[in-house]
Amino acid sequence: MKIYFAASIRGGGIDPETCRILVSHLKGYGTVFTEHICREAGGTDDRDLDEEIYKRDIRWLRASDVVVAEVSVPSLGVGYEIGKAEEWETRVLCLYRKGSRNRLSAMIGGNRGIAVKEYVEVDEALALIDEFLTGPKGRC
Amino acid sequence: MKIYFAASIRGGGIDPETCRILVSHLKGYGTVFTEHICREAGGTDDRDLDEEIYKRDIRWLRASDVVVAEVSVPSLGVGYEIGKAEEWETRVLCLYRKGSRNRLSAMIGGNRGIAVKEYVEVDEALALIDEFLTGPKGRC
Repeated sequence: MKIYFAASIRGGGIDPETCRILVSHLKGYGTVFTEHICREAGGTDDRDLDEEIYKRDIRWLRASDVVVAEVSVPSLGVGYEIGKAEEWETRVLCLYRKGSRNRLSAMIGGNRGIAVKEYVEVDEALALIDEFLTGPKGRC
Repeated sequence: MKIYFAASIRGGGIDPETCRILVSHLKGYGTVFTEHICREAGGTDDRDLDEEIYKRDIRWLRASDVVVAEVSVPSLGVGYEIGKAEEWETRVLCLYRKGSRNRLSAMIGGNRGIAVKEYVEVDEALALIDEFLTGPKGRC
């Protein structure tokens, strides 16, 4: 299975430890294209480098069977990827940490076409991933 | 012309005054579906209400001739809308305020299919809107 893991990196994203646990768990199901994001310092002011990142990520997104997105922290990139994936009929699971400082956008939380699941402890997120990836239609 | 104006509202968005000036300027070109966002307090914890907002906004987005997005503040909703608009071949102008605390996502800044323009003073943003909406192919 080819998995695209999306999470906010720039502008204060999810904590690296949670990121690593989620990615490590997803790797049990197949290839996680974006496992580097837990290590990524976060962004560049270089438009050419940005273009390289964009081209790489959009290629990965297109090649993916599923998208798992951590949506507790607002991110233009993650929202963009969810929108594209939905259009391409790629299954999307959004994980939102309950009690996050930021309310979830209605474009995600109010969208019944996307699986949006809440967690508090990381273990719950892992169980939600299992449910999503092994469930009947991959939706929970 | 039908215009979808997108900007971050939840979790500390653009300042309401800038929002109002941009919307007021856009209204000179036609109908701005989303002019209410400058007044919106920002979000709800009610999934049913979120679904209503989602359905309304996606209908407006689909009916729009152009999308003008203020992208200085990270937002899942704005990113999602840009991704959908691009898939639907709706013209998109992204306005980014130089010196914003948040770096622009590579998925937007590195995407040559989208017009991304920087401004400092609001007047510059208005000029960029004029250029985009009156330019030869609507791209600048």
